[in-house]
Amino acid sequence: MAEWYCPRCGFKAELWSRYFFECPVCKSPLEIAHPLLFEPRGKGLARYSSMLPFTPERGRGEGGTPLVREVLNSVEVWFKLDYLNPSGSFKDRGSALSIYYAYKMGFKSVVEDTSGNTGVSVSLYSRLYGLKPFVYMPRTAPEGKKKLVKRLGGVVVETADRAEASLKVLEHAGESFYVSHTKSPLFLEGFTTIAYEIYEDAGVPDALIIPVGSGSLLLGVFKGFQNLASLGLISKTPVIYAVQGYSVQPVYKAFKGCEEEGEASTLADGVAVPNPPRLQEIVSAVRASKGDVVLVGNSEIEKAYAELWERGFTIEPTSAIVHAAFLKLLDKLKGKRVASILTGSGLKMI
Amino acid sequence: MAEWYCPRCGFKAELWSRYFFECPVCKSPLEIAHPLLFEPRGKGLARYSSMLPFTPERGRGEGGTPLVREVLNSVEVWFKLDYLNPSGSFKDRGSALSIYYAYKMGFKSVVEDTSGNTGVSVSLYSRLYGLKPFVYMPRTAPEGKKKLVKRLGGVVVETADRAEASLKVLEHAGESFYVSHTKSPLFLEGFTTIAYEIYEDAGVPDALIIPVGSGSLLLGVFKGFQNLASLGLISKTPVIYAVQGYSVQPVYKAFKGCEEEGEASTLADGVAVPNPPRLQEIVSAVRASKGDVVLVGNSEIEKAYAELWERGFTIEPTSAIVHAAFLKLLDKLKGKRVASILTGSGLKMI
Repeated sequence: MAEWYCPRCGFKAELWSRYFFECPVCKSPLEIAHPLLFEPRGKGLARYSSMLPFTPERGRGEGGTPLVREVLNSVEVWFKLDYLNPSGSFKDRGSALSIYYAYKMGFKSVVEDTSGNTGVSVSLYSRLYGLKPFVYMPRTAPEGKKKLVKRLGGVVVETADRAEASLKVLEHAGESFYVSHTKSPLFLEGFTTIAYEIYEDAGVPDALIIPVGSGSLLLGVFKGFQNLASLGLISKTPVIYAVQGYSVQPVYKAFKGCEEEGEASTLADGVAVPNPPRLQEIVSAVRASKGDVVLVGNSEIEKAYAELWERGFTIEPTSAIVHAAFLKLLDKLKGKRVASILTGSGLKMI
Repeated sequence: MAEWYCPRCGFKAELWSRYFFECPVCKSPLEIAHPLLFEPRGKGLARYSSMLPFTPERGRGEGGTPLVREVLNSVEVWFKLDYLNPSGSFKDRGSALSIYYAYKMGFKSVVEDTSGNTGVSVSLYSRLYGLKPFVYMPRTAPEGKKKLVKRLGGVVVETADRAEASLKVLEHAGESFYVSHTKSPLFLEGFTTIAYEIYEDAGVPDALIIPVGSGSLLLGVFKGFQNLASLGLISKTPVIYAVQGYSVQPVYKAFKGCEEEGEASTLADGVAVPNPPRLQEIVSAVRASKGDVVLVGNSEIEKAYAELWERGFTIEPTSAIVHAAFLKLLDKLKGKRVASILTGSGLKMI
């Protein structure tokens, strides 16, 4: 029923025939085609089985995260608390699908390169299915995240930086399942469920503020709303504001045609992805939504971070960039209903 | 509609007339009487508004935690992932009610003595309503929990030990709202919702394994199942296994008539409450359920802790005591459906 396909060169293959972490013909990121039927039943990620390419057999309570609605600066904001996922980040929605797929395809181990959260998430789901996780992380990744990977039974392989992690992991891929969350359409599919949950809890927001690293989250949520529209369930999709830090702004550059100078954004380490594999798709999605790309820097992130904690949102610094962007966009957002996706837990950074 | 009442001396007062953290006549812990109607609607704690004395106006996604069902050692276990509450522990169900009550009663600050989790939880909810939290914690409390209280805008007051925290906090009570979670029936009411969620997700388990510190959790969940029975929704309530550590075993002693020697249980700091205010009620509840009290020590806790992490449950050491008890009770549990309540997140201990 479900199949891999490459939107760039047209390559196609049955989903369960062989695992591809990129198109074997043109090296582009693949997508997955599968039937869609909106019949929510049960809880968590599995509630949307009929909208997913398959349903994992096991879980740890991923998905079904709370939506908290508040009025801030006269704007109605819906905070999506995706940091309350089992491993402390939204990545669990992708790992749940991806690692189950690895298990069903007979792999015994998985490898991944990550700045942190995906490593924790992948380790958690690997252990559920008895697979051994190897996680390539930059030496500078938060210590807490490294400890979590180890406690979950994962092996941490430290590299000089994020780029070296991405190179070294390839030597390990093949006999091990290469999760490749920045490219994997399994992650993208997992993130569509965020749109379904927001829709069921509150309807369609006027605007969505989303942090962008690899862009899988943005593309997944965008696809989710598009799926709902294609089924005739909603008549419009939200305007998307993609948020990056000044230090690493490939989406801004591709969207505006030039870079913008600003203060460093080292606090947003979780979205520091210099070459998002689906860059063109991200730009097209933001454009199609009549949205924009917003850049923020450390002082704005710090302010937003402190404000979110004071408001009881226990997020990590990277997750605060959406709120920094919200504060920056206030004039544009007056009178709108805005959904802000809070992606990672700060508990593990303590 | 709702009123305070003292089951020991018969004292009664309207709930919104004045705040009592214990019976003003006989100093016993109070209870709250209120109408019951099982009409679940919406999500999280507020789903059970009609079963609670009142509904808080604000929230951070407390309640509605996942129930994960697995077969372990041929026993069907339902893990209740209450560590996925917003501040990382089940205490949020109590704080949500308690702090809202403080706010409505016009208090401007709250005080609490705690070994850790309640301090984090109380701070989070206090900030939601603009109240200032003062948290008395033993110097030995986990550093991560102290940092969390501060980041949430709370003031940490360190004491020599847990007992001194309980004494010193009284000097502060009065003009500040004294949360008093070990006695407060507001916490107990909050914990009833765990029973309602388990009932809705899976029905009534044959047995419940619950960690016991002050006993509010045990009494709350027990009351929840009793409420469902009194409404004719269920015909039996579960057998309750109360779990303590060898080092601090007041419930075991009161239940069995004597202490049992065993190795230290310092890893279970979260349940080290030497004088639970509702000791007799706890013993009566376990007895009425035809249950038992189980003691565990550090080596059993360590084993259970590692096993739960390897299974993807990101809990703190104290929370592992229920699994240590499960492994100890295996023979008795064969053929039963067992619910294990996992109370605190390990992310904040990293």
